[in-house]
Amino acid sequence: MNAKVDGRKWKAETEAGGPWQLDRIVSELRAVRAQWRGAQQRTREFGAREFPSRDALREIAEALCGVLFPMRLGPSDLHQESEDFYIGHTLDAALVSLLQQVRLELHYNARHAADGGDGVDVRARRIVEAFALSLPTLRRLLDSDVLAAYQGDPAARSVDEVLLCYPGVLAIIHHRLAHQLHSLGVPLVGRIIAEAAHSLTGIDIHPGAQIGAGFFIDHGTGVVIGETAVIGERVRLYQAVTLGAKRFPAGEDGGLQKGLPRHPLVEDDVVIYAGATILGRVTIGRGSTIGGNVWLTRSVPPGSHVTQAGSLHEQGSPEEVRI
Amino acid sequence: MNAKVDGRKWKAETEAGGPWQLDRIVSELRAVRAQWRGAQQRTREFGAREFPSRDALREIAEALCGVLFPMRLGPSDLHQESEDFYIGHTLDAALVSLLQQVRLELHYNARHAADGGDGVDVRARRIVEAFALSLPTLRRLLDSDVLAAYQGDPAARSVDEVLLCYPGVLAIIHHRLAHQLHSLGVPLVGRIIAEAAHSLTGIDIHPGAQIGAGFFIDHGTGVVIGETAVIGERVRLYQAVTLGAKRFPAGEDGGLQKGLPRHPLVEDDVVIYAGATILGRVTIGRGSTIGGNVWLTRSVPPGSHVTQAGSLHEQGSPEEVRI
Amino acid sequence: MNAKVDGRKWKAETEAGGPWQLDRIVSELRAVRAQWRGAQQRTREFGAREFPSRDALREIAEALCGVLFPMRLGPSDLHQESEDFYIGHTLDAALVSLLQQVRLELHYNARHAADGGDGVDVRARRIVEAFALSLPTLRRLLDSDVLAAYQGDPAARSVDEVLLCYPGVLAIIHHRLAHQLHSLGVPLVGRIIAEAAHSLTGIDIHPGAQIGAGFFIDHGTGVVIGETAVIGERVRLYQAVTLGAKRFPAGEDGGLQKGLPRHPLVEDDVVIYAGATILGRVTIGRGSTIGGNVWLTRSVPPGSHVTQAGSLHEQGSPEEVRI
Amino acid sequence: MNAKVDGRKWKAETEAGGPWQLDRIVSELRAVRAQWRGAQQRTREFGAREFPSRDALREIAEALCGVLFPMRLGPSDLHQESEDFYIGHTLDAALVSLLQQVRLELHYNARHAADGGDGVDVRARRIVEAFALSLPTLRRLLDSDVLAAYQGDPAARSVDEVLLCYPGVLAIIHHRLAHQLHSLGVPLVGRIIAEAAHSLTGIDIHPGAQIGAGFFIDHGTGVVIGETAVIGERVRLYQAVTLGAKRFPAGEDGGLQKGLPRHPLVEDDVVIYAGATILGRVTIGRGSTIGGNVWLTRSVPPGSHVTQAGSLHEQGSPEEVRI
Amino acid sequence: MNAKVDGRKWKAETEAGGPWQLDRIVSELRAVRAQWRGAQQRTREFGAREFPSRDALREIAEALCGVLFPMRLGPSDLHQESEDFYIGHTLDAALVSLLQQVRLELHYNARHAADGGDGVDVRARRIVEAFALSLPTLRRLLDSDVLAAYQGDPAARSVDEVLLCYPGVLAIIHHRLAHQLHSLGVPLVGRIIAEAAHSLTGIDIHPGAQIGAGFFIDHGTGVVIGETAVIGERVRLYQAVTLGAKRFPAGEDGGLQKGLPRHPLVEDDVVIYAGATILGRVTIGRGSTIGGNVWLTRSVPPGSHVTQAGSLHEQGSPEEVRI
Amino acid sequence: MNAKVDGRKWKAETEAGGPWQLDRIVSELRAVRAQWRGAQQRTREFGAREFPSRDALREIAEALCGVLFPMRLGPSDLHQESEDFYIGHTLDAALVSLLQQVRLELHYNARHAADGGDGVDVRARRIVEAFALSLPTLRRLLDSDVLAAYQGDPAARSVDEVLLCYPGVLAIIHHRLAHQLHSLGVPLVGRIIAEAAHSLTGIDIHPGAQIGAGFFIDHGTGVVIGETAVIGERVRLYQAVTLGAKRFPAGEDGGLQKGLPRHPLVEDDVVIYAGATILGRVTIGRGSTIGGNVWLTRSVPPGSHVTQAGSLHEQGSPEEVRI
Repeated sequence: MNAKVDGRKWKAETEAGGPWQLDRIVSELRAVRAQWRGAQQRTREFGAREFPSRDALREIAEALCGVLFPMRLGPSDLHQESEDFYIGHTLDAALVSLLQQVRLELHYNARHAADGGDGVDVRARRIVEAFALSLPTLRRLLDSDVLAAYQGDPAARSVDEVLLCYPGVLAIIHHRLAHQLHSLGVPLVGRIIAEAAHSLTGIDIHPGAQIGAGFFIDHGTGVVIGETAVIGERVRLYQAVTLGAKRFPAGEDGGLQKGLPRHPLVEDDVVIYAGATILGRVTIGRGSTIGGNVWLTRSVPPGSHVTQAGSLHEQGSPEEVRI
Repeated sequence: MNAKVDGRKWKAETEAGGPWQLDRIVSELRAVRAQWRGAQQRTREFGAREFPSRDALREIAEALCGVLFPMRLGPSDLHQESEDFYIGHTLDAALVSLLQQVRLELHYNARHAADGGDGVDVRARRIVEAFALSLPTLRRLLDSDVLAAYQGDPAARSVDEVLLCYPGVLAIIHHRLAHQLHSLGVPLVGRIIAEAAHSLTGIDIHPGAQIGAGFFIDHGTGVVIGETAVIGERVRLYQAVTLGAKRFPAGEDGGLQKGLPRHPLVEDDVVIYAGATILGRVTIGRGSTIGGNVWLTRSVPPGSHVTQAGSLHEQGSPEEVRI
Repeated sequence: MNAKVDGRKWKAETEAGGPWQLDRIVSELRAVRAQWRGAQQRTREFGAREFPSRDALREIAEALCGVLFPMRLGPSDLHQESEDFYIGHTLDAALVSLLQQVRLELHYNARHAADGGDGVDVRARRIVEAFALSLPTLRRLLDSDVLAAYQGDPAARSVDEVLLCYPGVLAIIHHRLAHQLHSLGVPLVGRIIAEAAHSLTGIDIHPGAQIGAGFFIDHGTGVVIGETAVIGERVRLYQAVTLGAKRFPAGEDGGLQKGLPRHPLVEDDVVIYAGATILGRVTIGRGSTIGGNVWLTRSVPPGSHVTQAGSLHEQGSPEEVRI
Repeated sequence: MNAKVDGRKWKAETEAGGPWQLDRIVSELRAVRAQWRGAQQRTREFGAREFPSRDALREIAEALCGVLFPMRLGPSDLHQESEDFYIGHTLDAALVSLLQQVRLELHYNARHAADGGDGVDVRARRIVEAFALSLPTLRRLLDSDVLAAYQGDPAARSVDEVLLCYPGVLAIIHHRLAHQLHSLGVPLVGRIIAEAAHSLTGIDIHPGAQIGAGFFIDHGTGVVIGETAVIGERVRLYQAVTLGAKRFPAGEDGGLQKGLPRHPLVEDDVVIYAGATILGRVTIGRGSTIGGNVWLTRSVPPGSHVTQAGSLHEQGSPEEVRI
Repeated sequence: MNAKVDGRKWKAETEAGGPWQLDRIVSELRAVRAQWRGAQQRTREFGAREFPSRDALREIAEALCGVLFPMRLGPSDLHQESEDFYIGHTLDAALVSLLQQVRLELHYNARHAADGGDGVDVRARRIVEAFALSLPTLRRLLDSDVLAAYQGDPAARSVDEVLLCYPGVLAIIHHRLAHQLHSLGVPLVGRIIAEAAHSLTGIDIHPGAQIGAGFFIDHGTGVVIGETAVIGERVRLYQAVTLGAKRFPAGEDGGLQKGLPRHPLVEDDVVIYAGATILGRVTIGRGSTIGGNVWLTRSVPPGSHVTQAGSLHEQGSPEEVRI
Repeated sequence: MNAKVDGRKWKAETEAGGPWQLDRIVSELRAVRAQWRGAQQRTREFGAREFPSRDALREIAEALCGVLFPMRLGPSDLHQESEDFYIGHTLDAALVSLLQQVRLELHYNARHAADGGDGVDVRARRIVEAFALSLPTLRRLLDSDVLAAYQGDPAARSVDEVLLCYPGVLAIIHHRLAHQLHSLGVPLVGRIIAEAAHSLTGIDIHPGAQIGAGFFIDHGTGVVIGETAVIGERVRLYQAVTLGAKRFPAGEDGGLQKGLPRHPLVEDDVVIYAGATILGRVTIGRGSTIGGNVWLTRSVPPGSHVTQAGSLHEQGSPEEVRI
């Protein structure tokens, strides 16, 4: 650009947005995409977007929250006499939309299949039907979670407050929906729902994790629960707890097998305080308490009380040990 | 479903969304709700939703941000000559909406009262009036917070940047509004506003916490400040700091008394670095510094420097001690 | 307010919203603002809002995500034949809008300049042009990040899943855009984009940080990366990792020089596990592994394995040491 | 404004919007309002808006269209199995909203009443209940209208096309809703719904008009049907037909009595062609045909054929007479 | 309802919306629908909505307006350099959406077909492709219309004003799109677009009407142009002109044959003034002028001047005759 | 397209939208635009859109309706105590937006000017200031219109109903705003506002028309009032009245001078009934009554009663004469 700028023309261009060399940029971006697609062996098969949509799944999850708890998470002008109409209508629309998302994931998975995805629509339908039929059971589980939150926090004034205000409750509602979809064979759909909750609450639960009734996370920001974690009933977690996989030192063979159990087993009635990190396929025995900031990579027997120094107390020696 | 599927019919149903057994699911969900309501002794009294609305309170909080800082958090086309018109109009609409939310909380609380909630409307009005009158004072406090953020972060270029970009500032604006409402007798309304900020910033401040002027949280994700915490003036916090309650070992009687002071007292001019955890009704003396990741469950005198090993240095021995 | 309330009038006022003493509150707020502006030497120069807009920049960032990854982050009905039309149109609109934001920042900076901001529009234009031309390079870098995420997480099923579901990927896309703008001379615009990502993901990367190709953050909540951090290629981070500045004990002279390098240098192929805190201008040598929750304030040579007890192992003694 | 303008200041003000003398204009507008309110004896009683809302009623009317014809005017993703859920939910929400509007009209009417509007809420409820119960009857009537449109227009391909494309059908749906509300005692609510249809279709039917089954208006723009018009069954109208009141020459006493029948009686099976104007309480006998542009201010017996010259043919002389 | 109303319960119900007898109304509406569907032999085949959507087609038409006139009817921040990107992207999205609407109409038509609609998707695609390819020709025609409007109205200041402000221009843009779709075999899609324009402008042009280049309607409200009308080049119309079909006296056989030519032929360079009504398959000879309010049911030779008295002047006697 | 279609590929393309020959169509459209621009001597000067926006002006008009009648046309939750805040804020935002639209028109007009539009911004500002200052006077005029409507229609129940329900009142509010802008030198801005009202009401008043106080149009659809019409005080019109220009027979020289007075002068207290057409610069004397469907092209003295046969009665012979 010359130092001498023609004022009038300049003004016009400045206001207009003007010549961004759009053609050049568009063309360079095309070249980078082509390179990437080549490297990924993405010779084009389908021109359209074959992936589930975050926005659609967020709306579906929100609608299902209303279906499960109509008077608290449904529309504010709802009243009890017409709950069922609301639920039936909302559920139907949500399932129609979910069916479309499920089909997208199944078609995506079948994109290399020999049969070109025949039968995908039938499978999608069955998945959504099964998911729909499981909703009453999910609601029952969630009732136990709400009750656990209410009983577990001395500051909670009512179950209604818990349901409306606690991010941990929002996270577990999303998780139970996402886990059901994960189990039915659409893990990406489940994952996208889980990430929606993660963004809202800072709580990151992989949809593969199995979690029993009466689960409660307080505060929650920074909690991470891995794919193969198994959590019993009446377990309570605080913020920044990690139930993760053990890491391997550099230099080892990187070819980790996928899907192997690699996250903790947490038995019934365990409490894990803020910042605790539990890594690997270890078992936290029933009724144990893991103190704040504890770093734990081995199993502990039932009734253990573990505090920050890593000391391990068997049942019968319940006094807390400070680091 | 038969193995042999009539293609045409199937296609129609697949596209349509088709028969989800909606009646069955709706009916089962009704049964689960009935069971829950029975267990909660929720014999129906009011058919309508009697709970404050998250969406409404989010909009109210956003409007009040604009009222308090019109040229930075108000509409982008605002100019200084007409600030007062904007403020008057926006404030009025926000207060009308807030009045409705306050009434919902008071009615909810009065649902078991003998008088059926007489006088609730008068009380709601007084609460909103008192809240409105406190806004100038809140603005003055917030000015001190903005200044503290600007002075406390070497990377901050201007108070404007601080106001627009720092999540800690967003969190303290919400907290001061929420705390005022909490103090005036509508804790749920306050809590919902606090959770809105929590979701946006990852900073979780209970609306009951008392926080002095010149407060600053840097980065902020993972900060938790409990209900009965009391924080002095010019206190600075970094990410992942917890000011929590002490936990009791399993096996004790669970009947904790609500409302008892159980969170720390942090005196003036204290700095608490990232990841530090302070639990229980302990006092952090004026001018102390608590190092990163420190785990602290006892009081420390004024001028203390506490670092990760838990060592405690009285004023006069300011050198830092590494763990 | 009198104890004796005239019912009818009261009802009308209650429903109306009624007399909030709006005039008084508006007037008091004006006084507080005047006081603040006086204290800040804000004698009014420009009546209008002179600051970039968070909403506008969020929309710009979202549009640019679609421009960079049209088939995954663009509109769901896009198909490959018309990608370039979509990109050209969306990019153009985004750049027009960005130009406006850049001008706002430059004008803001020039508000005390002797020339009253002459030349600002020309500079704004050049910045946006340079930014636009850098997008293909950014896309190439981001491809390396996506690949790193896919290869670094055994649970990842496809690069598509990584792109759509991983908050760490969302954060690095925003960072690379924000860093480019920061480098071109509009740090506030960059900061606002960075904070948008922080709010969505809990990952707080200062736009000044320099990050090499193949970068991956897993889970991510609580990660903080400071302004002068320099990160090499193929570095992997987990949740709650801090790359921060060293803090100075209270009592020292507070006049820290701005802009000095004060955050870590992380060389190529380093892995830093969850919760690790690295402070100060230290160097983490190539290929090192920093264990979970490690607190580190000194440099470590290449190939080091540092675990929670702070033990330091030179290359050649790769076995992990537990605390 | 001085001839000499300070460029920089001017630019700032121009961009800002600047000093519009807002205070002066606001104050003058206040004075005009005060003058008007004084002249209208509007000493303030209620501070709030006491009038039904056009936007709310438009949404209610749209929702009721969906309730009456779910598969054609309801949401596009509806399917037959879940019609009832949709109807129940949508109807309930619409009635709740309508109740509010009905209360506003009744309160408005009662603003001078001695009892201050006691009983208004009970009456509002009864009106809405009665309205709701009449909906199945309205649907039946509308089915006859749709059929009449289909049979009356050789260009119509299906009843579905008629329902979706014909403005005359849209107008009669709105009219039947508005007339029902008018009859139940909320004429303003009815009028606002009628005007919504007027704006969309150019067809202006007063909600007071009584219209029998099988009614059809083709094209419709410019049709006016007055408050006391009575129309039989199977009547067909074309565009720009007026069924109006006779006007009185200037100079007469202006004190017309309200509510007196002053619009035509149109008996069964009458056809009125485009542009015809029929004024006053005249009767158009059963089976008559009124030609295009005819101006008619007297009654005609059954079977008449009236053409533009005003000639009147009794039954038995059916040949058309040209002007 | 008893005179004695329990206040508290009543209040709750009143506020709640309460018992509308929803079940009864929903059930009665279902019965009426069943009756209608039975009468229409609508045994259910497809459960989903099989009809094109008004909202979708309105958006498509609006997008196509922008595609045809990007700098005037496109987005306000568009500039000339990036027109083609905008057009390509917008057109593509509009065509994808249109394809869906076209399929809906074809499937609807094929619902009784023996083959169950095989081949419909292929036909839909061809229709949309042909439509897309005709757009440049439509734009050329529309340019002639815009020019005609500019030249025909002494008040028009520029072609830009004409394009943006004249309802007649909006109507002809919609008509040319709708007519193209009508001709390609999707008359319902065309009709819905035509009705969108009718609602906005009060101008009712059947999509079947054939209209030559250089067409202009001034003011426009009340204009009706029938399905089989044929209009030459450079024809000008004013408000409330009807080009309709002749009506037949009552008592005749109602079995009118569909599709027969029954509307006027208007040759080149004809002007028809406001309120004129021309009925039947008559020919208005080239260059004729039809006066305001004229009622005409016979053909007139080229060069005729017809005024309200119905007098007919052959070419050569051009002086106007008053009634 | 071959008869033999590869099913799978076809399906993918069909769902995707597929190859529309976008490049060809985009290129052809570009050629047509280039041809048009060449023919219009539109060598590009400004790349950006230089024309006022319909959407922006609709919003401005709506905001000004609220400013003029806050309690009826403003937001539904407004109450009287805060009217002035609402007005000040809304007016300010509307004026800022209007300023932008006025500048666009002035710049457009100055696009061929030698000075390149210098001074346009100053003029735009003055226009908007003058417009703002005229609003109280407009409100006073509009009050007289509302009163005229209330007194002129026996069916009107209150001035509130008139203001909210009568399209004639909506049209006159828009006209008075549009006329003011027309008079101040921005006729296109005025015209766009007028057309917004035309679309909503079917009433087409050119913004140049001068209309006195106490003006009322009943029903309104089809009313046309031309650019140079002058209407006195207390004039009443009914639907489909035309106050137009005389047309000239074909064959005359087409070079009409712009801006010459060519529409009727209607003196005070005239009533014009539905469908009457008055053409040319004729005078309708004070207090006259023009009957329905009358076609009038000469002046009539004060006190005339004209009915459809065209008979003319001087004052003193007031009896109506039927055709």
